[in-house]
Amino acid sequence: MTAINGDRLLRRIHELGEIGIDPAGRRTRLAADDADKAGRDLVSDWMRQAGLRVVTDYIGNVFGIWETEENKHEEPVMTGSHIDTVINAGQYDGCYGVLAGLEVLQSLKEAGARTRRPMAVVAFTNEEGVRYAPDMMGSLVYAGGMSARDACAAVGIDGTVLGEELKRIGYAGAVKPGFLKPHAFVELHIEQGPILEAEGYDIGAVENLQGISWQEIAIEGVQNHAGTTPIAYRRDAGVAAAKVITFLRDRCLKSGGRTVATTGCIRFAPNAINVIPGRAVFTADIRNPNEEALEVEEKALAAYLAELERTDGVRITTRRLSRCKPVLFDRGVVALVEKHAKKNGLRCRRMTSGAGQDAQHMATLCPTAMIFAPSVNGVSHNPEEFTGDEDVIRCGKVLLDVLSELAGVKESE
Amino acid sequence: MTAINGDRLLRRIHELGEIGIDPAGRRTRLAADDADKAGRDLVSDWMRQAGLRVVTDYIGNVFGIWETEENKHEEPVMTGSHIDTVINAGQYDGCYGVLAGLEVLQSLKEAGARTRRPMAVVAFTNEEGVRYAPDMMGSLVYAGGMSARDACAAVGIDGTVLGEELKRIGYAGAVKPGFLKPHAFVELHIEQGPILEAEGYDIGAVENLQGISWQEIAIEGVQNHAGTTPIAYRRDAGVAAAKVITFLRDRCLKSGGRTVATTGCIRFAPNAINVIPGRAVFTADIRNPNEEALEVEEKALAAYLAELERTDGVRITTRRLSRCKPVLFDRGVVALVEKHAKKNGLRCRRMTSGAGQDAQHMATLCPTAMIFAPSVNGVSHNPEEFTGDEDVIRCGKVLLDVLSELAGVKESE
Repeated sequence: MTAINGDRLLRRIHELGEIGIDPAGRRTRLAADDADKAGRDLVSDWMRQAGLRVVTDYIGNVFGIWETEENKHEEPVMTGSHIDTVINAGQYDGCYGVLAGLEVLQSLKEAGARTRRPMAVVAFTNEEGVRYAPDMMGSLVYAGGMSARDACAAVGIDGTVLGEELKRIGYAGAVKPGFLKPHAFVELHIEQGPILEAEGYDIGAVENLQGISWQEIAIEGVQNHAGTTPIAYRRDAGVAAAKVITFLRDRCLKSGGRTVATTGCIRFAPNAINVIPGRAVFTADIRNPNEEALEVEEKALAAYLAELERTDGVRITTRRLSRCKPVLFDRGVVALVEKHAKKNGLRCRRMTSGAGQDAQHMATLCPTAMIFAPSVNGVSHNPEEFTGDEDVIRCGKVLLDVLSELAGVKESE
Repeated sequence: MTAINGDRLLRRIHELGEIGIDPAGRRTRLAADDADKAGRDLVSDWMRQAGLRVVTDYIGNVFGIWETEENKHEEPVMTGSHIDTVINAGQYDGCYGVLAGLEVLQSLKEAGARTRRPMAVVAFTNEEGVRYAPDMMGSLVYAGGMSARDACAAVGIDGTVLGEELKRIGYAGAVKPGFLKPHAFVELHIEQGPILEAEGYDIGAVENLQGISWQEIAIEGVQNHAGTTPIAYRRDAGVAAAKVITFLRDRCLKSGGRTVATTGCIRFAPNAINVIPGRAVFTADIRNPNEEALEVEEKALAAYLAELERTDGVRITTRRLSRCKPVLFDRGVVALVEKHAKKNGLRCRRMTSGAGQDAQHMATLCPTAMIFAPSVNGVSHNPEEFTGDEDVIRCGKVLLDVLSELAGVKESE
């Protein structure tokens, strides 16, 4: 069996991780900014050094393609993830999947393997969605869920236009997204959660992806003096917001852990210590792997908001920010991940991805699954994000074995 | 009996209210800014036109004094309030008390009244505390609770120094605060709350002032991914904050309305929709007219925070921002207010001031009480703040009668 070059994979993760460190020491590579360009340049160079053909599409997705005269008419087996980051990010999120995919192709090539199908590794544009909305944009466009024209017209939080920024950094490609119709897609990613580590597993075979419901909730109460307004006369938007947050938590507890809900953003107006908030605006991020269950949660929230309007004398409006149905990955590919994990002696857990992933869009194009590597303490989107070297290498090896079977590798004699 | 000139009083309230309207139409006169100077100039002119001697002390408190050869050795009866405002303020808060006091002195003078004691009306500096901390600064310094030197060194939210700003606008006076030892102090103010209107009273005789406890509470949890972190593994600072806010509300309800508590300010970090808040910082404003009861509330909050540290796995620190004990006004002066209110045919309610007031500092110097006029819908610190013309005039008349009795008025024959 072919192995991967673990040292090279780790070295590349750390080298890419050095790019985009700001003066305050924070690692940040936002889609199509200068740091992202530097990261793309580095990864493209590595692809070329590995002998891959590098292709960029309209939306800036970068592909490293390995095909031969013999197999070029077959649909390719594809892997990959993204190399853009959040602000003050860790080294592994996304980058691990791209560099492990590159490592798999390079190792197979170096071992002289021949494959029945072409193979490709991709770095999708703007997965994180920090600078431009929506997130997972490159894979969405690739899968035909959004036009490249609309995506390139996205205006960033800094007022820039994505299409212009892609041109500026030299990654507005000449190839139409979707140009390769994959035979299968497998994304290796860090778990970004604590389950594998906490439950003593080495690797995750991701069989589905939670549905995600994002809403902004705005509560209008009556702004008034904090000292002179008796409790019975108050219409306190802040108290109503706090009730919603604890309500969502209670629903999660009642769901036995199936539902997760988060209020990540909040603001009160006028936001003065001695003024009863007249307005509270906050977000509700609700996730459940089952569409019916997610709808039940959304309805329960709506009913509770209607009740609050009556009991607390406030007016509540909600704005839908995003809604993704749960995604079911391909049973066959998931079983393949599980099989090769076990062959490699790893304790494998079937699991749900709590996060949105590029793989969810690819799943609309071809049989797809994901592999999760353990995240120490479940920390992610944080410089302390970490996956042990041994885990990085052995999950990379499982990726190699899964892709090899999908591509029909015949090792050279 | 002498009357007041109600039309003049109303006209002056509206004329002063025209000063400091910014281009966005928001009325704002912060301590010692240009709009405050314009307001001070106007009120000082009116004091001079009324024949009062105008004196400014070190901290910029402006006094209009009416004394005669006969009474100048007696302690004066004093009234007044403030003319600085919050941002986007109403017309009445503070200004009503200053202008009604001026109206009382002017009406008595014009009626040819002679008084056994001098009378004075004061506009205290920086009651609102928006630009410089602490609030109620002018009366605090006047009563000896803070040195004028320290107060003048206060640095504002805009980086300015109060003492320099007072010089710049011509209100750094040459007289030491406390130069007049009052015989009694009576402050007329709008209620800023809904009680008088809701319960059908015409006027309030304020017998005490709530104790006020201000804390900032900082909760440290663990920042993590909103999708991939199971509820059981979360240390969500935002949920813990919401629990504190609802806990405080529950305490208020259990107190039967004696305690009021408000969370006016809140912020989450990193404040991203799909990130569990790692940090939540918010304020707790707790008030109760009884010191022991206020201490019980503070202890209950502290115990709850300690419990939350255990149950929610968070770390909590609190920072004391301000603490004022309840103030008991003078029984005799309160009874006088009540007596004259009834003599004027008004339904008078004894009540507690929920807000801090200049009168609380004056109460450390001399027998003191306050008169409240009804606030429509209880709205204050808001351009919709309103007290009906009839209420403005008849509560001003009660102020005249109370001050007349305290000053020993003998109407001229």
